[in-house]
Amino acid sequence: MITFEHMRSITRRTPSRIALLIMDGVGGLPHPETGKTELEAAYKPHLNAMARDSLCGLIDPVSPGITPGSAPGHLSLFGYDPIQYSIGRGVLEALGIDLQLRTDDIAARGNFCTVDDGGIITDRRAGRLSTDRNAELCRLLDKITIDGAAISVVPVKEHRFVLLLRGQALSPELRDSDPQRAGLPPAKIESLSKQADKTAAIANEFVSQASSVLKYDPYANMVLLRGFSRHPDIPSIPDIYKLKPAAITIYPMYRGLARLVGMAALPTGEAIEDQMETLRRHYDEYDFFFLHFKDTDSRGEDGNFDAKVQAIEKLDRALESLLSLDPEVLIVTGDHSTPATMAMHSWHPVPFMLRSKWCRPDSVAEFSEPACLAGGMGRFPAIQIMPLAMAHALKLDKFGA
Amino acid sequence: MITFEHMRSITRRTPSRIALLIMDGVGGLPHPETGKTELEAAYKPHLNAMARDSLCGLIDPVSPGITPGSAPGHLSLFGYDPIQYSIGRGVLEALGIDLQLRTDDIAARGNFCTVDDGGIITDRRAGRLSTDRNAELCRLLDKITIDGAAISVVPVKEHRFVLLLRGQALSPELRDSDPQRAGLPPAKIESLSKQADKTAAIANEFVSQASSVLKYDPYANMVLLRGFSRHPDIPSIPDIYKLKPAAITIYPMYRGLARLVGMAALPTGEAIEDQMETLRRHYDEYDFFFLHFKDTDSRGEDGNFDAKVQAIEKLDRALESLLSLDPEVLIVTGDHSTPATMAMHSWHPVPFMLRSKWCRPDSVAEFSEPACLAGGMGRFPAIQIMPLAMAHALKLDKFGA
Repeated sequence: MITFEHMRSITRRTPSRIALLIMDGVGGLPHPETGKTELEAAYKPHLNAMARDSLCGLIDPVSPGITPGSAPGHLSLFGYDPIQYSIGRGVLEALGIDLQLRTDDIAARGNFCTVDDGGIITDRRAGRLSTDRNAELCRLLDKITIDGAAISVVPVKEHRFVLLLRGQALSPELRDSDPQRAGLPPAKIESLSKQADKTAAIANEFVSQASSVLKYDPYANMVLLRGFSRHPDIPSIPDIYKLKPAAITIYPMYRGLARLVGMAALPTGEAIEDQMETLRRHYDEYDFFFLHFKDTDSRGEDGNFDAKVQAIEKLDRALESLLSLDPEVLIVTGDHSTPATMAMHSWHPVPFMLRSKWCRPDSVAEFSEPACLAGGMGRFPAIQIMPLAMAHALKLDKFGA
Repeated sequence: MITFEHMRSITRRTPSRIALLIMDGVGGLPHPETGKTELEAAYKPHLNAMARDSLCGLIDPVSPGITPGSAPGHLSLFGYDPIQYSIGRGVLEALGIDLQLRTDDIAARGNFCTVDDGGIITDRRAGRLSTDRNAELCRLLDKITIDGAAISVVPVKEHRFVLLLRGQALSPELRDSDPQRAGLPPAKIESLSKQADKTAAIANEFVSQASSVLKYDPYANMVLLRGFSRHPDIPSIPDIYKLKPAAITIYPMYRGLARLVGMAALPTGEAIEDQMETLRRHYDEYDFFFLHFKDTDSRGEDGNFDAKVQAIEKLDRALESLLSLDPEVLIVTGDHSTPATMAMHSWHPVPFMLRSKWCRPDSVAEFSEPACLAGGMGRFPAIQIMPLAMAHALKLDKFGA
């Protein structure tokens, strides 16, 4: 397999640009009445015109049958083996609220929960308390001080928060306190290695103090912690590919993932037109752009077939300005499928197309699941997209003598 | 993955023959005016007739997006993982001038270069001195003697030569002296491991003596060395596949690569008809033939679309006699693409076809990039060709009970 070490030795800096447009969850399944998928049902002249000039295919984000979470789905698009480079739940939650993690920080995902008098969990989500009440309680917990680590407690939504531990010689090798079901007490946090003993003691002390602080709240009278993790040691896109990459996305988690791999996260507006404008404004400053369109996934998760079709049509209209910029390499694909008929992420492979002066066009004339299957790439692992993009941008030297 | 160990356990010797015809750089891209690739534009009745009877596909020599050099491109055709089995620059250069390396010899690629009075490189190629002058200077350097190794200096072309070190306990784990650009002095050759210390000292002593020998030459007054390497420890084709293989090619580098994997390199003539005659003459002595046709690559590298089309047509005419020999397995493919529109090796997958009594034919009726994409093999890694060839020659036993 071509490793990052090999890549580093053959990548070169050139003025050419790569734009990677991710339609989150774009892949779908046929509507039971029409037999057409969301993509087939949508009116999408720009996507189809691009498909006619492109090298097409279907990607497997992780591997056949595996439904990726958002992190693995995106990591493989960025060229990282999503199995080798896993991102802990705590870190992902922190990225999702725009927390800037230092490399040594330990992050855990926290839940407020309800325990009865005997300490047994009766509700793992404390009645899904309000986000406002969550913020009030986090302000109280944030005041907790423990020798050996600075403690931060940052609210997310409803019952969710992030616990950050910052200090010397901490380790994330800890077992969860969250038993993942009611009817049990919270588990003691155990260290999984000698060097995590100190961190385990700090985490247990935090839980103990939090329990005291919260004891009079009728619902949120306890906390559960899971996914202790640290910023992964991940080689950066600038380092591997000699690219200067920027992300254009409004969702904190994707901004965080992008920063994690060395991208600048550009400020931008809510509307897709704002994001295209951001691209135009910064077009001369970067040579790799990751653009993220969330609506296709959100409407798929809602189980709303027609709304997902409309989201595709909205993206199609916005695509015109991206096509007119004419980047040397333009890729449109998704991080996974979210069929409206399933109302969730799925394992189905995702349509892919790459337009460049140097692509060998195939006979595909439509951006859809069945059409892309007959494309020049056939079905292939998403992790191969970055080498393909680099090749078509003429940013790779020959491999071997 | 099927390893060589597995292969060894299921291969068997039979009288059936496999012929592997490599059209170097045969894959292409559409002509901007006609939309047809070189293969699509060529009149090639024999290639098309063979495609109708064959199992077709498109191969990735290394992996998608990766442009192979000639060595990795051929190694994967011969069944070797081109990433695991890499061939050093020095060895490849030595193979290219028909030097027979012993397994312990250390080879380095040398350049004559020009340095100024301060020892700074002003021209890495010494004004591309004449091949004749190169030979004169190599005769002088060849006289250098150093304790611990026999020194050979063999001219290649223009400014290039091969340095061979032969002796006890030598190691190729050395850094280059060639800094790869002018404006710097040649680097001291450093050892990358303890056991290479002695070899580093010998190599530095060679550079020092060479500098004295050359000091009055106005251009070629210094040498640069890179790619220290040794004959790779590579299992042979006779050992893995129980084949008796022969190569028919006039270019030293391909003859060298063929010998490296255990093939006999048969003497043959310049013209493709001579090579077909060589095949006929030796047809009963071997059961595997590697035939190499270089013109498709050379005309592609020239950027001459029409000349590449003509090279394909020339090969097509010669193919008739190969088809009439009717080997049990006949394969036609390439080691990489060399689109005339790019005038260089490229990463695009390469048309492939395999004809045998036992292949399951597909609907492909033309030997071209778009037609082969719809073939029975689809798109697949070139390293899978050898097992396919062996299977269709009925030279493989069942795997597992």
